[in-house]
Amino acid sequence: MKMTEDHAEHLQELMRWRRDMRHFRRTPLSEDLIEELRAAMDLAPSVGNARPWRVFRVEEPGLRQQVRADFLRCNQAAAESYDNDTRVEYTRLKLAGIDKAPLQLAVFTETDPPEGRGLGRATMPHTLEQSTSMAVYGMWLTARAHNLGIGMLSILDPDRMKTLFDVPESWNFTAYLCIGYPEFDDDTPLLHRKGWQENAKTEWVTR
Amino acid sequence: MKMTEDHAEHLQELMRWRRDMRHFRRTPLSEDLIEELRAAMDLAPSVGNARPWRVFRVEEPGLRQQVRADFLRCNQAAAESYDNDTRVEYTRLKLAGIDKAPLQLAVFTETDPPEGRGLGRATMPHTLEQSTSMAVYGMWLTARAHNLGIGMLSILDPDRMKTLFDVPESWNFTAYLCIGYPEFDDDTPLLHRKGWQENAKTEWVTR
Repeated sequence: MKMTEDHAEHLQELMRWRRDMRHFRRTPLSEDLIEELRAAMDLAPSVGNARPWRVFRVEEPGLRQQVRADFLRCNQAAAESYDNDTRVEYTRLKLAGIDKAPLQLAVFTETDPPEGRGLGRATMPHTLEQSTSMAVYGMWLTARAHNLGIGMLSILDPDRMKTLFDVPESWNFTAYLCIGYPEFDDDTPLLHRKGWQENAKTEWVTR
Repeated sequence: MKMTEDHAEHLQELMRWRRDMRHFRRTPLSEDLIEELRAAMDLAPSVGNARPWRVFRVEEPGLRQQVRADFLRCNQAAAESYDNDTRVEYTRLKLAGIDKAPLQLAVFTETDPPEGRGLGRATMPHTLEQSTSMAVYGMWLTARAHNLGIGMLSILDPDRMKTLFDVPESWNFTAYLCIGYPEFDDDTPLLHRKGWQENAKTEWVTR
């Protein structure tokens, strides 16, 4: 299929307006929309076509509460690792939308799948985790195309997540995703806006 | 910005027709197009807004030749790891476009960047590598939007790549990307088409 200028322009808008969202409305998502998000992951590149992502849709309030408690614990520890001034700055940042996001996903990566028969990962086993990351980004852009936001939460103890979701030893924790309609749109990263880390162009070096 | 049905449809087409390409024409890319690819990486999510990807544009023929030699060595070792029947099947697959692709990039990840001030990666340092993977996927979709193809090569020795490109110890090798106009379009993974690994739907599990 030949792509058009509209494809490039729309993709660019989606990438620019995709942000890590932490402010959600409680409006639930339709099951059709949730199926589109799931299907977007299956269109991601994956090493050996192995599709190593393993996804839990977290609905049980008690389980959500336990994830939230782990976030609060890890976030507190992170805050304490900074000096006084930086700690004040850090604690002013809202880093998770876990309190309100209507759809929440726990994403893991199977690090030893039979699928793919080992192709492409003999020297670089972490290509499996690269595949899951790409699947998450494909879902993220798809969410944005439907005016949804995603917040990707990594301020969690990965071993604790493995225990909470009772997963096989060969699964690595990838991320906890908060998904819903955002309270506002933005084309600028919150960390740039709040002065934590400014956007900086990354140059390519010719060799 | 409110997104439209066209955004969702165009994105879905890009994801469906994005394939890992290994058959390239030699037609060079314009510098404007190369700049669009670079800029697409900068729109990816990154932990702490750290943008940890480090990219070499590989132009020197001798250097390309050394990467190709490492691929041939690793690919031979991979082939030898399979039993006879599978080895025949494996060696029939074309797994790299490194012989012809006009643009070639060596991508690394800085695992200890000052940018981001550690935010979001205290418990999960590999979030930095997740960021680079997402930047690669954003570039991949952008390439597809301009009717380019990308082949992502991971059948390489990551330590050898670090030596070849003489990078700091804190940089991890992420991938070698072959980029150019593909000889043909396809909406089905080569590994599915050739019977190596069929597409399989990944289900979400509710908890």
